[in-house]
This record gives sequence, C-alpha cells and structure tokens, in this order.
Amino acid sequence: MSLPENNNKKCRIAVDAMGGDFAPLNQIKGAIEAQSASDFIEVYLIGKSDIIKNCLKENNLTFSENRIIHAEEVIAMDETPTQAIRTKKNSSIVLGNKLIKENSLDAFVSAGNTGAMMASATLDLGRIPGCGRPTIGSIMPSEKGITTLFDVGASVDSKPAHIVEYAIMGSIYVKEIFNIPEPKVGLLSVGEEDSKGNEVTIAALPLLRKTNLNFVGNVEGRDILNGSVNVIVCDGFTGNIILKFGESVLTLLKNLVRSYAEKGFVNKLKALLIKSTLKEILKGFDYQEHGGVPLLGVKGVCIIGHGSSTPKAMKNMILRAFDMHNKNLIKKIENSLKEYSL
Amino acid sequence: MSLPENNNKKCRIAVDAMGGDFAPLNQIKGAIEAQSASDFIEVYLIGKSDIIKNCLKENNLTFSENRIIHAEEVIAMDETPTQAIRTKKNSSIVLGNKLIKENSLDAFVSAGNTGAMMASATLDLGRIPGCGRPTIGSIMPSEKGITTLFDVGASVDSKPAHIVEYAIMGSIYVKEIFNIPEPKVGLLSVGEEDSKGNEVTIAALPLLRKTNLNFVGNVEGRDILNGSVNVIVCDGFTGNIILKFGESVLTLLKNLVRSYAEKGFVNKLKALLIKSTLKEILKGFDYQEHGGVPLLGVKGVCIIGHGSSTPKAMKNMILRAFDMHNKNLIKKIENSLKEYSL
Repeated sequence: MSLPENNNKKCRIAVDAMGGDFAPLNQIKGAIEAQSASDFIEVYLIGKSDIIKNCLKENNLTFSENRIIHAEEVIAMDETPTQAIRTKKNSSIVLGNKLIKENSLDAFVSAGNTGAMMASATLDLGRIPGCGRPTIGSIMPSEKGITTLFDVGASVDSKPAHIVEYAIMGSIYVKEIFNIPEPKVGLLSVGEEDSKGNEVTIAALPLLRKTNLNFVGNVEGRDILNGSVNVIVCDGFTGNIILKFGESVLTLLKNLVRSYAEKGFVNKLKALLIKSTLKEILKGFDYQEHGGVPLLGVKGVCIIGHGSSTPKAMKNMILRAFDMHNKNLIKKIENSLKEYSL
Repeated sequence: MSLPENNNKKCRIAVDAMGGDFAPLNQIKGAIEAQSASDFIEVYLIGKSDIIKNCLKENNLTFSENRIIHAEEVIAMDETPTQAIRTKKNSSIVLGNKLIKENSLDAFVSAGNTGAMMASATLDLGRIPGCGRPTIGSIMPSEKGITTLFDVGASVDSKPAHIVEYAIMGSIYVKEIFNIPEPKVGLLSVGEEDSKGNEVTIAALPLLRKTNLNFVGNVEGRDILNGSVNVIVCDGFTGNIILKFGESVLTLLKNLVRSYAEKGFVNKLKALLIKSTLKEILKGFDYQEHGGVPLLGVKGVCIIGHGSSTPKAMKNMILRAFDMHNKNLIKKIENSLKEYSL
C-alpha cells in the first residue's frame, strides 16, 4: 500500500489504533495530542477504519482522514504471537512493521500484544545486521538519574553474546535519548565479585570487559533502583520477572492503602492524605512519562506500550519514537554492533 | 566438645553470637528474649566467650554462663564462604553445625555470613538423603496469606530436579509452619501458559505436574506479592535477584520520603504523617516477624538471618527454629523426598 508522499520530510509515525486495553480511544487521543505537540511529525493511525472513525465521531475528536491506514484484521491481546502474525497478515501490527520496512513509515508504536509486536518486528521488519536477538528495555524508576534494564522479555535463554548485544544497544539508547555521554553498564548477578553468577553471566562477564563500553562489572538486584548504573543487562527471563514483580509493588501499595482506608473514618482521612502525598513523591516514577519500552535490534523505530496505556503514555511513546528517529538511532546501533564484531 | 546433658528434653537452640552487623549485642539480646518467651527451649550462644561476657557486662544483661559455647574463630560477613569454612574450623558457624550433627544441639540460627552458613550446613551437617541441593526460602509480604519463594540463592544454575526438590521442601515448610493444609505451588516463569519459560522451567514443569503437590502451573513476577500461591519455586539466581530487588523497594520509598521532607516545612509535616501511616499499613510486612529464612535440605534445623537483624528478629528466628524442631520438619522432609523418589 502507499501513503501520501513525504515531501516535507516530516517523521512519519504510526500508532496501532487497535492495540491496548482501552483501544482505540486512548490510542486516538494520544495520537491527536502528539500531533499537536510537534510540527516535525506526521502521526498515522493503523486499524479498522470504521472503528477508528466511529470512535472519533462518538468522542467529538478530529483526525485527518488520509492519515488513517486501514487494517482489516486485529490481533487480540491474548493471542499466541507467532501464530497470530502468521495468520493475520492484514493486522495493524504486521502492517505497521511492513510499512516501516518499505520506507512508507519511520516509526511504529503499539500498546497491543507485546509478543506479536516483537515477533512481527523481528520477522517482518528484520534484524539489524550483527544483532542476534532484539531486546526490549525497561526504563526503571531510580533515586538518581536513569536506569534501564535490558532484556525484559524479548527472549529467554539469552546466550552470553546476546547479553553483550543488549549492553551495546542499551548504551547507545541511553546515551542518545537521555544525553548520558558514557553510560555505566552493569551485569545483573548475585554478587559483585567476578566469580558470582550463573553459567551465562560468568561467560558474559569477560566478553563485556572486552568491549569499549563503560562496563563496571556485576551488579545486584538492589542496584536496579539505586541508580548506580545506567544500563543493567540480564537474560530476558530474569528481566521479565523483575519487570512484572516491580509493577506489582505499586499495585500492592495501592491495595494496602485501600484496605486500610476501609477500616474506619480516621483511617479513611489518613489514607486520603497519604495518597496525595505518595502521588507527589512518586511523580518522577510515572511510567507514562516514558510511555513505552523500546524494541532495539530491529531495522526500524519500534516502541511497545503497556496494555493499559493512557493517552498521555501514548503521546509520550510517539514523541519518544520521533526522538529515536531524529537521532538516527537505528544507524548508530548498526555501526556500533559492526564495530564490536570487528 | 560436650554440652550439659539434655535430660529434660528441651529443644537446644544455638545462636551465632558473632554473626550480624550488630553482633554480638543484638544476638545476645534476642537470645535472652527468646529464652524468656518459652520454657521448652534452651538457648545457647556460640562465639568468642570473652567478647560475649564483656558485652553482657557492659549492657547489664544476664545469660547463664554454662550456655555460652566458646568458638575461637570468627567468620567475617564478607569472607569467601568456602575458604572461610575450610580454614576456620573453630568458627561459630562451623561449630554450630557440627554440634547439631553430633546431636549436641537441635537447631542453629545465624545472622552472619550467609554463604558460609550454607556451605557449612551443607558440608559439616550434611544433606538430607534425596536432596541434591539445599534451598533457602524467603517469606514474601503478600496481600493475603503467605507466599514463600524458594530458592533465593542457595545455588545458581538449579537443575529441573532441584526445582522439584524446592517445591517438595517448600510445601512441607509452609504446611507445617503456617498450617496451610495443601499449599498451592507455582513455578516462576514469564507467562502462565505451559509453553512459556526458559529451558529449565520448561523441563521442570512436567516433573512438578507428576508430583502429588498442589501444583498450579506457571506463575509470573506479579504473583509473588498477590498471594495467589503459597510456594513459588525458581532457580537461585532469579530468586536472589528478586529478593534483593524487593528489599531495595522499601529503601527507595524511605529515601524518597526523606528527600521529600527536606523540601520545606509543609513537606516535612506531610512526610511525618506518611511515615507513621505507612508504618501502620506495612506492619504485616515486617521482616522481623519471621526473623530469618529457613535453610531446607540439610540434616538439621538451620535459620539464616539478615545481617541487620534486630533483637526482635533474632528472637523470632529462635522461636521459629523451635517450631521447626517441634514439628519434626527434617524427618518430614526426608520422608517426602523419599516418597517422591519412589
């Protein structure tokens, strides 16, 4: 399919209108907000055009009709990824990635089925030369500065060489996006000494030392939140469990405050106060600020959002995608992977 | 060495007086408190007797002199475990385990060097027949009921068969200690479907299904805190990282409240309020209640405490050790491992 010609060289970013627990409304709202926020981008919505148009109408929203890209099929949040992308070639997810591949789009963001997004980006868009395994990085809250965790689930059973790739790609991401010149990199393990770790980390450690990265050695679970390093690398199994565990901490805290509030009037008042103060204290930790997590190692800018993404999160995902495109991140990753393989 | 004869059949529990960041004071205080709390136990202190006696004197504390077991050497918190237990045969840790082995003691608790405690318990005390790898379990805070996580670091690169052992031993522990008749067991993975996981979990899953445990299948990172299962099993690498990450969440929260309080008078007031309310809300999550983590799979009751253990934590470790002894946990674990191996 062909999109309007991109004569003005704006960055063309597509949003998966069908992906997310509150799709398409949050996705549409986020797209509209992002479009108003920057003159340098052209935002597109991919999905069932009748559903998108109805949603716009029902909510009294305006979005340029020629920026709606029709995709006949929808991959549900709980579908088996590999099967879904094989059988639903006309889904918003597969189409988004194909349009980047044929250079009709510059970036694609989706809060839909994470596995399908990863699988389609890897297969339909393709891997950057030198990248054995693409990786998803999570931006973790931290006391100071920025800590990112790679990989948080793009692949399990990561080999030592993959962990090195995560470190290279994660370093470039942090350097370019957060303007940290020499990001500190740590290898997640069970102790700081070189001898501590499992088979994979013990084999990965000397490989990481050989790179020209700012590698500090092993770090521990406690270093994820204390901001001592900027990039923490681990296998996707461990990273995914940490990510989900970390998310659940806030849920637990919320639920505890709620049940506390139910135990009488005084508690209710205290809970109200604590809620507003906690919100203030934790505002720097709002996942919506970063919107989503980057998928690195594929030949195009891809960002994956949380299923429950709000319009604000969607907007920030789109603006982050623009930043990644603008800074030529994919090319820089390719060069860096090449440099290391020499 | 020989201890006074145990004619009255009280449970003889030794405390490593030299182990812990605040040793020997917190350890001595905990021992005294535990001794006052139960008539069924005989508490002993193991360590450098002059240091113990000085500490008692300086703090105006009383402890029966014939319950102080002299150990000439001390294993420091940061010593390399295997080397330490090999070279310091007269350390409190090695001696404690040896005294259980020769039936002079019934249980041993230490807040000292965790690795040395594990290594000595495994080598000097010995493994229960049928146990390939002893395991440390952590009692996690949860919204409802009790969730325990095995293994949190006794060994990395756990094999599928070891994970099954963790499940068997963890189930008995939870059943006996927390009176949960059929503890629900989950395998920590990256998705609930049987197909999700890494090589080790995918191989462990069918083995767990074959047992007569109340096994529910894969669980995810978010299930650690929501109380959906009672025993979660994983390899020691993942478990250790989760444990340290989890501990750091509370540190982060505290630090955030502190820096918030520093931003003016109103903030200071709000922070005071939030601190007291949070304390109330989180009181069920006080690690001191459980004191320490059990080391299961060795031929004796061993509990390992946090380095920063308070007297209250030490006391509860000792009482928990009594409970484990009283319920004949070691024998029950042995029988259960045997049953499964048939």
